Amino acid sequence: MSFRLAGKHLGLLFIVLSAIILLVAIWSGIVVLMGDQREATAAGALLISGVIGGLGGGVLWMAGRGDRGALQRREALLLVAASWVFGAALAGLPYLVWAYLAGEDFSGHAFLSPVNCYFESMSGLTTTGATVLTGIDALPRSILLWRALTHWLGGLGIVVLFVAVLPAMGVGGKRLFQIEAPGPDPEGVHPQIRETARILWYIYVGLTIVQTVALRLAGMDWFQAACHTLATLATGGFSTVDASVGGFNSLAVDLIVIFFMVLAGVNFGLYYQLITRRIGSVWRDTELRVYLAFMFGGAAIVALCLIGQPLHLTTGEVTEPSVGQAVRHGFFTTISIQTTTGFGTADFNQWPTLAKIVLLTLMFVGGSAGSTSGGVKVIRIWIAIKVMAAEIERIFRPNVVRPLRLAQSSVSPELKLATVAYVLGIVVLLAVGTSLIMLIEPADNIDITTASTSCLATLCTIGPGLAKVGAIENYGWLTNGSKLVLSLLMALGRLEVFAIIVLFQPRFWRGN
Amino acid sequence: MSFRLAGKHLGLLFIVLSAIILLVAIWSGIVVLMGDQREATAAGALLISGVIGGLGGGVLWMAGRGDRGALQRREALLLVAASWVFGAALAGLPYLVWAYLAGEDFSGHAFLSPVNCYFESMSGLTTTGATVLTGIDALPRSILLWRALTHWLGGLGIVVLFVAVLPAMGVGGKRLFQIEAPGPDPEGVHPQIRETARILWYIYVGLTIVQTVALRLAGMDWFQAACHTLATLATGGFSTVDASVGGFNSLAVDLIVIFFMVLAGVNFGLYYQLITRRIGSVWRDTELRVYLAFMFGGAAIVALCLIGQPLHLTTGEVTEPSVGQAVRHGFFTTISIQTTTGFGTADFNQWPTLAKIVLLTLMFVGGSAGSTSGGVKVIRIWIAIKVMAAEIERIFRPNVVRPLRLAQSSVSPELKLATVAYVLGIVVLLAVGTSLIMLIEPADNIDITTASTSCLATLCTIGPGLAKVGAIENYGWLTNGSKLVLSLLMALGRLEVFAIIVLFQPRFWRGN
Repeated sequence: MSFRLAGKHLGLLFIVLSAIILLVAIWSGIVVLMGDQREATAAGALLISGVIGGLGGGVLWMAGRGDRGALQRREALLLVAASWVFGAALAGLPYLVWAYLAGEDFSGHAFLSPVNCYFESMSGLTTTGATVLTGIDALPRSILLWRALTHWLGGLGIVVLFVAVLPAMGVGGKRLFQIEAPGPDPEGVHPQIRETARILWYIYVGLTIVQTVALRLAGMDWFQAACHTLATLATGGFSTVDASVGGFNSLAVDLIVIFFMVLAGVNFGLYYQLITRRIGSVWRDTELRVYLAFMFGGAAIVALCLIGQPLHLTTGEVTEPSVGQAVRHGFFTTISIQTTTGFGTADFNQWPTLAKIVLLTLMFVGGSAGSTSGGVKVIRIWIAIKVMAAEIERIFRPNVVRPLRLAQSSVSPELKLATVAYVLGIVVLLAVGTSLIMLIEPADNIDITTASTSCLATLCTIGPGLAKVGAIENYGWLTNGSKLVLSLLMALGRLEVFAIIVLFQPRFWRGN
Repeated sequence: MSFRLAGKHLGLLFIVLSAIILLVAIWSGIVVLMGDQREATAAGALLISGVIGGLGGGVLWMAGRGDRGALQRREALLLVAASWVFGAALAGLPYLVWAYLAGEDFSGHAFLSPVNCYFESMSGLTTTGATVLTGIDALPRSILLWRALTHWLGGLGIVVLFVAVLPAMGVGGKRLFQIEAPGPDPEGVHPQIRETARILWYIYVGLTIVQTVALRLAGMDWFQAACHTLATLATGGFSTVDASVGGFNSLAVDLIVIFFMVLAGVNFGLYYQLITRRIGSVWRDTELRVYLAFMFGGAAIVALCLIGQPLHLTTGEVTEPSVGQAVRHGFFTTISIQTTTGFGTADFNQWPTLAKIVLLTLMFVGGSAGSTSGGVKVIRIWIAIKVMAAEIERIFRPNVVRPLRLAQSSVSPELKLATVAYVLGIVVLLAVGTSLIMLIEPADNIDITTASTSCLATLCTIGPGLAKVGAIENYGWLTNGSKLVLSLLMALGRLEVFAIIVLFQPRFWRGN
């Protein structure tokens, strides 16, 4: 294993991240020059962070410059893990520096704690959207823009990773992905990766522009429209206001956000196929159908649960909803949860038990493989259900063999085992995470609902959970130990476990 | 599918059960004749129940008498499911009749509810040990003896089923079982089943005699010694006193019960091998080693947690335990939980979080396949862990193949998939069960800890859970709907899911 080589690529990533931080700093500086003095400290913080990150990246790159080898599988896995773990440290630096510069208007601010900054930044890059903040409305706009940008960058990174890079490398996602969206050919890897990544980039940027314009037309200002778009397409969930999307109280905004959340939860490989005119295979895509069925089935149940109940909005208002409002908030919340975005218009922690059960189930399920959303992924859930049903039938019909088909090809026994083991692994991680939170937090500070849903909401990259981490709550009150556990869960969930968990296997670090 | 044929065999089972009920009624009558008038109503209830059950069984048998075919796979599965589901109804009849005969000394008794009687009886036959009762000490001894006997009969039934019948039929347990304990040859099924069952019967009766004598020597009277033995060997957990085994406050009793609980959680196929002089294969048995490692590792952690904490005994007494007492109660409770017995000497609901986590984990793990204990079973957990570790290694070493070996043979891919799918299925059942309990119970009557641990404690046939179903609580306060859900979970858990869950597949009932 060549640490130097991995370090060189990590240095490159740091340089790119720092360049983007500096771009935000420049925008911030322009805002200051146009007369908004509130942004001055933020502009300074971004500048300092960008310079530090750039220098650090430069040193790493220089140190590994001599190593011209190609990344082997293990170096690549190490690089992916390091990108999120150390990238979050760099991306959180502007928060910390800003809090120290901000002065007494923000005395005692959450960002004065490095752990809080790391948590918020990891939550951004992993597109989780869990926050330690209250009083979001009062923050400088450049900090909020950077915060939303971390979502967008993380989402872009994950799509390129899972749709272009890993399949070509033959790692993890590949086996799931190649079945339905053959896309790039594993032969001639490098040019293919670059070509696929370029198309994904166009799709992602295109969607960003369209949604931003749509939200502007719906009444948001450009800043808010941009920030919410960055958070939507990444299925992140950071908003610029405390009341989240509910703060805009606009049906048009809700509908636009719903539409783009649904799009963001679809396998980006399908957009690639749309562009290359393979419309038929998109329409027949099993995962897409199951994804939509889960989503609209779940949303319908949730909406029905809300009729006739008092509805607590994220703004604090309590209303007796009309049927239309029940449908609106039921669909918005369910889609926000299943796509693992986490935007809110209503406090689902107050909803009837059945609605909560549906939401928790969809948190676990998540969106499609190859999308920006998290969770176990629809395709894995579908395979696991089929495998379990087949096992039950085998009890009374041991000789019947029903091949499990996805599109044209049948799912191999290895893929079945890998999928079911993955789903079970997520359950184990949830149990271990919940146990750790229960052990770390003082007994009078934690309950089992909070502990378990905070793990579910971070491992599946949703954001809000239930009880003390519910839709209108935040994660700021947890102890540092818990925040670090949850940060690790976010990284594990985002990278579909494997890139992180191999780091804990002693064999990974050994010579051969 | 021939319902008549299955009905004929069910009738036979009813006749046997009724005969045993009548034997208890005779014993009860003798006790009455010897002067104990308190037993009179119980004797009457047992007599009435035995006659009703015998008549019902006779009718079923007569109706199917003409059908001389052999049981096919589906009829056999239906019979297994019906044996527990309807057997529990018959076995609960004495409770109900007794409560109606008992008069005002027992006015408002829990057994006046048929659902309570069914729950208690299912809990007995499935060797769960969850009870709806308080004031157990006040019940007639013949009712308590019958209650303990349901454990013993259920335990015997399950061992014969999983070690002799199913492996020969090639169903479920077989595949797990045949690897390490080849035992009976699938050829020449019927004589083999009978021979294996006969040896298992000797082992079970032999252990029963030895433990009863041991408990008598340790100071219990013959009645208590017998009842506790019946409940120990079946890993059931019903006691004759409210404070459970802790009520006897005897180190000798605790040690004897610990010893026989450990024995009851071992694959009875190993005793079969011991008798046929294959000691080496017993010693090398992977499951036995892992079982003991989990048990003593877990017990050691729990005992450490108890040192220096106030200890709440089941008698209500609170003590500052010495190191010796911490070890005693830590080991007793941990072994009682992992073997899924559920006897108590201390209220583990009051224990530190880490101890509870260990206990909940061991509830899930359970004892060995082919034993009377429940849970997922050690061998399945072991295979699932190995499969998940192999999947992680495959990420960075896709070409390394490490065959998973148990004793001499390697585990087939089909068995790996079946095992991991089974473990995941148990998790799904726990989630569904917990959701149902949360939906059925009034919101102010239930909390998530109670709902989830009541499902865990019944599906894994343990008995006590945490919170409102903790070690010194009972299940009587739940609504009827929840009690029926938990009764179903007990049957699902006891029959390792399959025999029950196939009944919910439409294909099972169709012609071919």
